[in-house]
Amino acid sequence: MRLAIYGFGEVGSAVAQLANKYGHTVTTIADSQGAAIESDGLDVESILKQKEQVGKVGEQDSVDALTGPYDVLVEVTPITLGDAEPAFTNVKTALEQDRHVVLGNKSPLAERFEDIKTVERKSEGEVRFEGTVGSVIPVLSTIRDINPAHVTGVRGVFNGTANFILSRMAVEELGFEHVLAEAKDLGVAEEDSSLDVNGTDSALTCSIVANILNQEKEFTLDEVSVDGIEQISGSVLELARENGRTVRLIGEITETKLQVAPRIIPETSPLAVTGSQIVVQIETEDAGNLNLSGSIASGSEMATAILADVNRLGK
Amino acid sequence: MRLAIYGFGEVGSAVAQLANKYGHTVTTIADSQGAAIESDGLDVESILKQKEQVGKVGEQDSVDALTGPYDVLVEVTPITLGDAEPAFTNVKTALEQDRHVVLGNKSPLAERFEDIKTVERKSEGEVRFEGTVGSVIPVLSTIRDINPAHVTGVRGVFNGTANFILSRMAVEELGFEHVLAEAKDLGVAEEDSSLDVNGTDSALTCSIVANILNQEKEFTLDEVSVDGIEQISGSVLELARENGRTVRLIGEITETKLQVAPRIIPETSPLAVTGSQIVVQIETEDAGNLNLSGSIASGSEMATAILADVNRLGK
Repeated sequence: MRLAIYGFGEVGSAVAQLANKYGHTVTTIADSQGAAIESDGLDVESILKQKEQVGKVGEQDSVDALTGPYDVLVEVTPITLGDAEPAFTNVKTALEQDRHVVLGNKSPLAERFEDIKTVERKSEGEVRFEGTVGSVIPVLSTIRDINPAHVTGVRGVFNGTANFILSRMAVEELGFEHVLAEAKDLGVAEEDSSLDVNGTDSALTCSIVANILNQEKEFTLDEVSVDGIEQISGSVLELARENGRTVRLIGEITETKLQVAPRIIPETSPLAVTGSQIVVQIETEDAGNLNLSGSIASGSEMATAILADVNRLGK
Repeated sequence: MRLAIYGFGEVGSAVAQLANKYGHTVTTIADSQGAAIESDGLDVESILKQKEQVGKVGEQDSVDALTGPYDVLVEVTPITLGDAEPAFTNVKTALEQDRHVVLGNKSPLAERFEDIKTVERKSEGEVRFEGTVGSVIPVLSTIRDINPAHVTGVRGVFNGTANFILSRMAVEELGFEHVLAEAKDLGVAEEDSSLDVNGTDSALTCSIVANILNQEKEFTLDEVSVDGIEQISGSVLELARENGRTVRLIGEITETKLQVAPRIIPETSPLAVTGSQIVVQIETEDAGNLNLSGSIASGSEMATAILADVNRLGK
């Protein structure tokens, strides 16, 4: 498949670097500053270098990126709340030309699920978005295989940055601000980590899962009750530990609950993953609870999820 | 889809009971003693009752089961080593009539992978077998999505009965024979649990995974180095625990290793699942390690995996 990668941050560049290995060709790379388009395939390494040196991926207009030579739009622009722009328009433009779309950006699905579905229904193209829930951890495909109607709940630690901070606060007995600063130094947290620590990123995941589990109604971020980890104190973590428990930022989607909040859970719970790991528990009617976990800290995990989605197109 | 269920033990009866709920019709139920065939769909509850009362599912000949009115053979006869009969012939007969096959029985894939693939290639029917590796835990579909060529290893606790025994021995400080007897009383272990505790069942899983990861060569049970848990003593478990470690029966498939053996691992390892849970760790080139776990103790987990495979047919 010929890929147009829109958004060239950590995930976009990882997709570009891995695409060839997974059997695809990158013909377009674009971001808000410009675009590089080459129907025979781009030289990814030289574009990475150029982006680093001059801050632009190329001299062409970003607008032309979506009408050029590609089969699949890989939409990996940053999260935006509310109207989910410019991601929504990017997806719409690609679908209207009967191209496929693989989303890494959660916003359009978490905020405008029905709008996306409406545009998709009129298109020959498909929209895939496995990576938007748990990155490379196969959450949506597992729900689909079991059948959403027989999944009674999904809960878990959806954000690795928040989990890194909480588990490090507990082990090292350090305060929130201190560990957050450290996480930024280590590159585990981005410079602006507000959506990670205030629970919004996890809530976007909840909204997408709710849309998959319940197809009668549309969910948006507004419907998710959200608490972050900024107010968690060392004394709470200490008290929890003395009782064989710990605190994790848990997202939960059931028929009656749509919530992100710090929760006190047993240290032996499958949800008590450490470091920048995440975990998703799928509760089923007939097959108990499945626990899926892994580390999703770098761009290459999301890139792997996106390229797996590209391979699923048309199947 | 119209299902022919061959084998009517715990898994076969769970498939029969859940089939309707998952959108399918059971037209045939057979085991070594006889068969019940009804092209409009069988009354599953009355067959369960009859099997319990007279030891037979029906008066028809088992041989007719495979030529009757069905789209998918669900092969769930017991494990047999070596030639994998009668399962292999059942699969072959179904494929030769261009029917699909979903396997719950591991033997044909672990012992005669190439023979199965050869018959499948000549058939309009497909063979699916997600449930043979980790039951409802999505191991093979995850490997397929990532691409087997980019998976560098698979390891885990593949047998819930062995794990129940080991983790209970460690916690209760009881001997192997004692805990095994208790597991049988609780229904966690079957009356004949020799393949669970001597590692053979886990080794069959290893052989199947090796066949998926390395398509250049055929693997059988003979190639797996196997040690069981019968010789594990309480003193080993105690020593491990004093060092923050524990013992688990680990199966491992890498380019250079194909092994089932008790291994000493950290208590905090993702592989240190407790009770009758199992866990599978998929090690990837580009996306780190994924850990997939859950309890697969009852027939309904395997039935769910089998019915998910039925839904995947033709896709």
